[in-house]
Amino acid sequence: MEKLYIIKIGGNIIDDETKLAAFLDAFASVKGKKILVHGGGKLATKLADGLGIRQQLVDGRRITDTETLRIVTMVYAGTINKNIVAQLQARGCNALGLTGADGNAILAHKRGVTSAPAGGNVSGPAIDYGYVGDVDAVDAAFLTSLLEQGRVLVFAPITHDGKGQLLNTNADTIAQEIARGLSGSFETCLVYSFEKSGVLMNAEDESSVIGRIDLSYYQELKQRQVIFAGMIPKLDNAFAALRSGVGKVIIGRAEELQQLLAGQSGTTIVHD
Amino acid sequence: MEKLYIIKIGGNIIDDETKLAAFLDAFASVKGKKILVHGGGKLATKLADGLGIRQQLVDGRRITDTETLRIVTMVYAGTINKNIVAQLQARGCNALGLTGADGNAILAHKRGVTSAPAGGNVSGPAIDYGYVGDVDAVDAAFLTSLLEQGRVLVFAPITHDGKGQLLNTNADTIAQEIARGLSGSFETCLVYSFEKSGVLMNAEDESSVIGRIDLSYYQELKQRQVIFAGMIPKLDNAFAALRSGVGKVIIGRAEELQQLLAGQSGTTIVHD
Repeated sequence: MEKLYIIKIGGNIIDDETKLAAFLDAFASVKGKKILVHGGGKLATKLADGLGIRQQLVDGRRITDTETLRIVTMVYAGTINKNIVAQLQARGCNALGLTGADGNAILAHKRGVTSAPAGGNVSGPAIDYGYVGDVDAVDAAFLTSLLEQGRVLVFAPITHDGKGQLLNTNADTIAQEIARGLSGSFETCLVYSFEKSGVLMNAEDESSVIGRIDLSYYQELKQRQVIFAGMIPKLDNAFAALRSGVGKVIIGRAEELQQLLAGQSGTTIVHD
Repeated sequence: MEKLYIIKIGGNIIDDETKLAAFLDAFASVKGKKILVHGGGKLATKLADGLGIRQQLVDGRRITDTETLRIVTMVYAGTINKNIVAQLQARGCNALGLTGADGNAILAHKRGVTSAPAGGNVSGPAIDYGYVGDVDAVDAAFLTSLLEQGRVLVFAPITHDGKGQLLNTNADTIAQEIARGLSGSFETCLVYSFEKSGVLMNAEDESSVIGRIDLSYYQELKQRQVIFAGMIPKLDNAFAALRSGVGKVIIGRAEELQQLLAGQSGTTIVHD
């Protein structure tokens, strides 16, 4: 099967013009079929602040009310997506920007009111996350047809419910669902690129990258509390992706994309 | 040749939720291949006001400085485009939102500093319109391939210069250039739909619609000053489109789209 890279870039890269440019240089030079999924960065918060819109946070999670949805749609699908597309075009990369609503690429449903997940406290107060979408389906045939035409797809983290409602959706999840959906047609490699060198043995030491993690090693690292907090959902997602057919997951620094793909940098996650 | 409708909706329709919904109902039920081009409406001005950004106007024309470009990209390519796409999807219409940057669909160049065109006063002061794009090329093969896949294209009035710069571009012009570019492959029908019933014999009387205008009648109407001000560039564009191969141009009320296409409403512009 032909290789397909699904590469997610985090918000910190988007916020830094120099890092973003370096990443886009590297991304444009990756040969073969590829999909970029971008997060949001601080632009949405800045815009909300500028408009005097108060962000609702519950347990550190942003609640997507009507105003917040309007803002993330503007910033993610407008500013960030279209600027990345234009900058990739300038690098000879025939980029095409999409949200899940476009061509019904990613169908989702509004998340129901749930108990707070933090600390597994299921008896905690119920949380309404607002216009947040959980993914139901990725149209693999549509995405494949665009890839076959030589397009490089750039996804903003916005989906829709098929009934006219746009939904804010986690970019890591979108990348994972796309990789999963296309694993039947391609040898998929899912890359989470961000501002860190990879999964670190010591969070304070960027040189302590763990080169390779399989499931049993992951469980050991969690037990020893080497891996904790924000890295756990990322790795849980990575293993879920591998279980659902994704070939390989790599986590590492966005500016080192070429080395990540060559296995010379970052952390490679394999099932066993 | 197969028929293709290129339908532009004006800002006043976008600003009015009820009118927009009625238009989208009608648009979704149009059979066959179709492209929607939307303008901006008052949302961009409202957002700029909310952020305390002063709009620069020269001779009534908005100057697209860096901040304005950022705002129109957010509002046109983000809010308006993605909401229209989601609402069309809800109506069973497989919409796909695009700017000119996406897939390099519409390549433009930044307008040079020009003399003020108002009143033909070419000796007037030079105006720098800022990040405004004049269209160079429409990728007809790309748009055709999407249409052949059953997609309904929804264009925001943003283009790019191929060097990484997004550009604000007049939506009427985008509609016209797309119609022109696709006239080799389709029997094109270009529709400018807005809040008026068509070209009126008496600007105060919505029932005084002129059903059909050809070039000689247009010249007569201009001479008699029946047609003036904002309608002149619209009609000049219509005749330019017809000269470049577009089959038919119709001007009329957005909510009456079905009747416009059936020739029962609005003004039909033909070359002779």
